Amino acid sequence: METFPEPHPGTGPAAEVTVYEVGPRDGLQAEETVVPTATKVELVHRLHAAGLRTVEVTSFVPPRWVPQLADAEEVLGAVAGLPDARLPVLVPNIRGLERALSAGAREVAVVVSATEAFARANLGTGREEAVVRAEAVLALAAEHGVAARGYVSMAFGDPWEGRVAPRQVVPLVERLWTAGCARVSLGDTIGVATPAHVRALLTVLAGSEERLALHGHDTYGQALANAAVALEAGVRELDASAGGLGGCPYARSATGNLATEDLLWMLHGQGVSTGVSLPDLAATSAWLAGRLGRPSPSRVVRALTGGSS
Amino acid sequence: METFPEPHPGTGPAAEVTVYEVGPRDGLQAEETVVPTATKVELVHRLHAAGLRTVEVTSFVPPRWVPQLADAEEVLGAVAGLPDARLPVLVPNIRGLERALSAGAREVAVVVSATEAFARANLGTGREEAVVRAEAVLALAAEHGVAARGYVSMAFGDPWEGRVAPRQVVPLVERLWTAGCARVSLGDTIGVATPAHVRALLTVLAGSEERLALHGHDTYGQALANAAVALEAGVRELDASAGGLGGCPYARSATGNLATEDLLWMLHGQGVSTGVSLPDLAATSAWLAGRLGRPSPSRVVRALTGGSS
Repeated sequence: METFPEPHPGTGPAAEVTVYEVGPRDGLQAEETVVPTATKVELVHRLHAAGLRTVEVTSFVPPRWVPQLADAEEVLGAVAGLPDARLPVLVPNIRGLERALSAGAREVAVVVSATEAFARANLGTGREEAVVRAEAVLALAAEHGVAARGYVSMAFGDPWEGRVAPRQVVPLVERLWTAGCARVSLGDTIGVATPAHVRALLTVLAGSEERLALHGHDTYGQALANAAVALEAGVRELDASAGGLGGCPYARSATGNLATEDLLWMLHGQGVSTGVSLPDLAATSAWLAGRLGRPSPSRVVRALTGGSS
Repeated sequence: METFPEPHPGTGPAAEVTVYEVGPRDGLQAEETVVPTATKVELVHRLHAAGLRTVEVTSFVPPRWVPQLADAEEVLGAVAGLPDARLPVLVPNIRGLERALSAGAREVAVVVSATEAFARANLGTGREEAVVRAEAVLALAAEHGVAARGYVSMAFGDPWEGRVAPRQVVPLVERLWTAGCARVSLGDTIGVATPAHVRALLTVLAGSEERLALHGHDTYGQALANAAVALEAGVRELDASAGGLGGCPYARSATGNLATEDLLWMLHGQGVSTGVSLPDLAATSAWLAGRLGRPSPSRVVRALTGGSS
């Protein structure tokens, strides 16, 4: 059984795929308790040692908004020297960008919202104002020669406004590209997207797959199927969190991001070489689950580490 | 949130899809404890009331092999009168078929194995002998005018023999069709298949999608993504178990079948009308989880019923 998943020769896209690990940021910001800085640093080191090369390490949000990540400077400082790694950090505004730059960030990520309600609830401003704010952050990041990524949150559905149509999302993606984002990640923040919906949005954005990523949560079990659709459509960067860490306080359940291990199982099955050791990564997630006091929701983690379901 | 998943208009296959519910059989046979007959009967009634119309209700295996299903006659007898329902039962041999016929079965299912090792361990005979036995059962079923379905177990991988190549599977599928199976379900018995592997096997069987089904377990989180690939390829019957019940004693973890609720969420999202009430089905799975003393692994069940992860 150690040999699974064996790639099926000659099938599926074997192109290079970037697994964009969001556990230390999107995962830990959703934890009720504050994880010790040393644990966060060890987590990033272990993710890197397992072979992950793109890890979003923290967020420079005001500590009063997200006390879980108040140690952003210390965490980034402790991991910034990792070799051969892309270590983006989230920045919500100019002040956050300035903090990130001082701490040595070489890539930042900005967030906008496809819905007015989520912008108000989560970004503390209106939908349009959030875009303008992100554009200002991106302009300053470009001045400093710092790479940038964009997120469109609630790109598929929202707890208040329901289903989000592609026409609500596309102009935001285009503005983020114009403002300097190399890639924009389409966020299924509450996990309500289905493969049909992902396919529909990607059809509208066809031709720009290389400049897109997909960010899914697994609230309704759809995250991997959605990632498969994105991959099939040509998207080459997929967000995931080790062990399925994370969640969204506005979703009905606490189910987290797509688990990195489950994504890797699929990618390895189609011959995509990621350089990540699944057993090492699963062991890391099991270790973190022990620290957090609850089992990982990742099927692969449970299967490989003997966790109960 | 009650309105999710809303179908995305004009996208994806909106064709008719049969959700082939296997919980009462494949799910309950994997339970360590024996579920009371009355609970099984209530389960099938509740599944039917929630809108499921194809439910594999039990297996006429020798009680000494699977004591969990020793009450096959009573269960089938108590549900056989359900209106507008297809209620297949598994039959491992001629004796099982005779018992099923006496109990009023109108559809039976037979099992063969793609690997020698699983045939020996689970079917109690050799791989070829199991096919010959199934052919004899199917011949007698045809004489009685009873519909038949086939399963090819371990159609993707096996704990002893590793990855199973499509060329090992295709001849078995063809023999089952020839022997009278209207549909053959490709069994990912231990949940190791990936979308690439499913696509590869379905490519070899292209043109016969209407005579195939997919039977996935979610051991490594791939089951829904695999089902999405099958659906995209034209397969119109998908096996699932309510609440993700079930497992395989030979797999490394106890993770069960693809959860019916997670499959329905995806199908409803692409406009497939299944007639099933997701809230009613999730409530049924939550009720059964309470009887079994552990939470359902289905993400949808947890999200809709407030179960913890």
